[in-house]
This record gives sequence, structure tokens and C-alpha cells, in this order.
Amino acid sequence: MKIKSNLKHQNSKQVSVAFQGEHGAFSEQAALTFFGKQVTSVPFHSFDDVFKSVQTKRTTYGIIPIENSLGGSILQNYDLLQRYNLKIVGEIKIRVVHSLIVHRGTTVKDIRFIYSHPQALAQCELFLKKLKHVEAVAVYDTAGAAKFIKEENKLNAAAIANEEAAELYGLTVLKRGIESNHHNYTRFLILSQKFEAATTRAKTSIVFSTKDIPGALFKALSVFALRDINLHKIESRPIMGKPWEYLFYIDFEGSMNDTHCKNALRHMSEITHHLKILGCYSEGKTINGTNA
Amino acid sequence: MKIKSNLKHQNSKQVSVAFQGEHGAFSEQAALTFFGKQVTSVPFHSFDDVFKSVQTKRTTYGIIPIENSLGGSILQNYDLLQRYNLKIVGEIKIRVVHSLIVHRGTTVKDIRFIYSHPQALAQCELFLKKLKHVEAVAVYDTAGAAKFIKEENKLNAAAIANEEAAELYGLTVLKRGIESNHHNYTRFLILSQKFEAATTRAKTSIVFSTKDIPGALFKALSVFALRDINLHKIESRPIMGKPWEYLFYIDFEGSMNDTHCKNALRHMSEITHHLKILGCYSEGKTINGTNA
Repeated sequence: MKIKSNLKHQNSKQVSVAFQGEHGAFSEQAALTFFGKQVTSVPFHSFDDVFKSVQTKRTTYGIIPIENSLGGSILQNYDLLQRYNLKIVGEIKIRVVHSLIVHRGTTVKDIRFIYSHPQALAQCELFLKKLKHVEAVAVYDTAGAAKFIKEENKLNAAAIANEEAAELYGLTVLKRGIESNHHNYTRFLILSQKFEAATTRAKTSIVFSTKDIPGALFKALSVFALRDINLHKIESRPIMGKPWEYLFYIDFEGSMNDTHCKNALRHMSEITHHLKILGCYSEGKTINGTNA
Repeated sequence: MKIKSNLKHQNSKQVSVAFQGEHGAFSEQAALTFFGKQVTSVPFHSFDDVFKSVQTKRTTYGIIPIENSLGGSILQNYDLLQRYNLKIVGEIKIRVVHSLIVHRGTTVKDIRFIYSHPQALAQCELFLKKLKHVEAVAVYDTAGAAKFIKEENKLNAAAIANEEAAELYGLTVLKRGIESNHHNYTRFLILSQKFEAATTRAKTSIVFSTKDIPGALFKALSVFALRDINLHKIESRPIMGKPWEYLFYIDFEGSMNDTHCKNALRHMSEITHHLKILGCYSEGKTINGTNA
């Protein structure tokens, strides 16, 4: 499935997208869903490397998970949004479907070890509890777990990853949808150096610190409330070197070019020390897993 | 150093405090500073176990880190505060001082491996960069790293932990204060089943979810702003099974028994679906490291 986006390119083969993890990772799946399968996806070890890759123009775009509906915000990526000067130009929400992946011929009875990212293991807790004589082993990446059992020819082991990883590494899906809670969605952001404010279903993301005045956060939120602008999300992060002071990240409905949003942002600058627009992009659609 | 607290006991030897980690952990240091050294501190493997221990009356109190001034909120503990029915009855803030700990006789030149918790290794990055031919190894606990190099008799290794851990495991401090940023404080909360609202330097902590009404968060904050009540902290966490809806945690200045705070909380209940008071306690003092 390809999502129509307002990110236009002459030839999407020339478009490259940096993601964190091994090929087959959820972030790569999100990138291919957003841009289409002909895009070039480039794996990096860390989120910091993804940001660097876009900053140095090694790739056209980057994709990062920003929030999971069960685990909450990915705090490191909030910090990196503030540190780098990239813009958010798109969003996509993907339902996380975990699959139990094995070598062809391996049955549930053969499995002694299950490899995956600690969060994926936690999200499949109910399924894992039903298995006996099985040891769960935490590794750094879900797709990396699939790659590992393939390369090491582990016939008595399974990986928990998405089914793209099974196909990619020549493995097979023994059971699909083994996550305990199906309301498991991850929201991804697309990062770029080039920036054009969205006009349809627009959302704007900002980060700011307030002046040291009473009721500062209340006053900051009032600039939206007084103009009937809906907030989607608020997140706070510590300011380095200033214990118990915070940066606030807010996503609100509307384009930064709409008059009422422009007014809100100008009003906001009266209350804040530091105010940075992180991006203005179309609200992401929700994709119901990879077979949807 | 002992801090005067409003938690009174006939005999503090009868008081037990659950903490996460090995003996010598920062949480244990915080507990001994808060209650005095004669208290019985009981180590547990996980934060969940600390909550359980207080819930089942195995220990009188529990202590948990809730926020670090560099790393931010410890999200898991916010979730556990909502899940368990314990009350916050105290607070203490400790400056985190990392020490390089070795066997007596080991010099900097001998060190080939440095063991610590990943966050402690990250917080000492500048110091570690200066060392050559040294490998940093992540383990689950700072004090556990000291225990490990002692038990395994690792003469070519160091641990990064606090100096209490050196004393406890018969090791020596080679260098103190090796953290890159000295504005490194951790805020700890004291948990109990018994509860009495604080009266001096009182803070109240609540958690709530808002009704689905426009500007709900703004309205929730207004109950404080309209009564000149200062907010210390706001944190949001996902609601399980309701993607992109949030629980909000707020710490505000004042006792829940003060008339203006009572009014604010009654006003708040008009706007919220769910409102729970997590505790009312004296604002914690800041202790400047263990030698202060």
C-alpha cells in the first residue's frame, strides 16, 4: 500500500530514506508504506545516525518512531528534534503486528529460545507465558533477531519481528499477531532539510521554553485555547544544566501559515524564551499492519 | 546526613525501606539520607517489586527514582504510581556523583574494562573518551558493577558507581566526580500505604484523564492558574487501549487540605473522567552528593 503524500519527486528511485535498525525493521516498513516500495531505504545503527544522515544530505529523508500507543514517547527522538535543525515533513501511524518467525520446518515444540527487542518481548508477554521450556533473549532489534537466527542457523529458536523480516531473511511465519494488546500503534515522523508547510489536514509541531513567570505553561496553552486550536500532544523534557526546568513540545491542529495559527505563534513568542517550529505536515493516516 | 522528615517512628530500626538495585545503589543512598542510617534497606530486582513489597507490607516504605535532571522522567515509575494504590509521603533530591572504583593497587593504566549502568556510562562520556584501550561494558546496575568486579576479582577493570559502593564491596575510589555534567540530580519519592497530608512546604501530586472536550488540558491547568497555585511538573503517559489519549500527572504547590487546593481539586473533578491523588508531602531538600 502506498500513501499519497505531498512530498513530490521526479523519480522516487532517487529518493533515499534513513532508518534505524536492520533491513526488515518496523521503521523501514513505515518508510516503504509512506514513500512506496521503490524508495531506497538505508539502515543506520542509531537514531542519532539517522538525523546525521539527513543533516549531511547522505539521504533525502529520515524516518523515526516518535511515540507508541502503549509504551509512550521515544524521548531520545524528542531530544534529537531539538538538537538538529531538521524539519518534520510527514507522519504515518502503523499498527504493530508481531509475528513468531522460524526456519522452515521448525515447529512450536522445537523452540527453546526466542530472540527479540526487549519491548517486543514485553508486548508478547501473554503469548510467551503459554510456552514452556522457552527462554526469551533480549537483542537490540526485532529484524536483527530474525537475521541472527538465519545467519546462525538456529533451528531451535524463533524471532519476534514483523513478517517482512521473515520474507527478507528466508524464514517463515509460524504465528501472526502474537502481541498481548492489539491497540499497539507506532507513530513515525519523516524528517527532511527541505521544508514546505502542509496545507491539507495540517499539523504543526513546536518546541519552547517558557519565561520564568507565574502560570507560564497555562499562558502558553492559552494562545491555542483562545483561538479554538486543538492540541494533539504535549511532551516535556529536561533542560540540560537547569535542573527541574523543562522544554515543552506541542503538536497542534492547523498550518503555521493559517492566520489564526500565525497569531497564536506570535502570541506564544511573548511568553517564551525559545520557540522553534519543528515542522508543519499532513496528519498521518493509520495503516492497519502490513497486510492491510 | 539525616534529613528531618515528618515521618515519625518510635524506633527507626523497625522501619524498612524497599529499593531497586544492589546494596550501594543510588536509591539506597537516598533512602539512608532520608530516613537515617539505622533504617533497614531491602534490595529488590525491579521497581515493580519495590511497589509490591510496600503493597504487601513486606516493607514499611519504598523509595523510587522518579526523575533525573539530565535524563528526564522515569516513565515506568509513573505507570506504577497509577497502577498501585500507594501514596507518596516524601521526596528527596540527590546530586549524582559518579566515582571510578577499582581494586586496591589497580591504577588508571591497568584498566582495560569499565562496567556500569548504560546511563552512568553515558553520563561519564567525556571522562571515558580520554581513556585509551578501554572498553565500556553495560550492566544492569551501578552498584552491581562494583560487586561484580569484586566477586570476579577483576584487577584490570573499574566500575562506575557511587563511593558507598566502593566502601561496601571493599574497593577503592580512584577518581571522584567523573560525570560530564555536574548539574546531575535525581529526584526520589518515598512510598507508603499509610498516608497523612503534609503541612510544611507541601506539594500535592495527582493523576487524571480529561473528558473529551475542546481545550480540556487548558481547562485542567486553569483550575490552578485561577487560584495562583504553582505547578512544579507535568508529565503525560499513554492510556492503554486508547491510542493517542493520555493520562496527565501534575505536581502542584500546596497541601490538599488547604482551602484553595481543595477548591482547585473540586473544580478539576468537573473536567476530568478520572482523578486520583497520589500523595501530599513536603518538598524534598537537595543533597549535594554523599560527602555533603
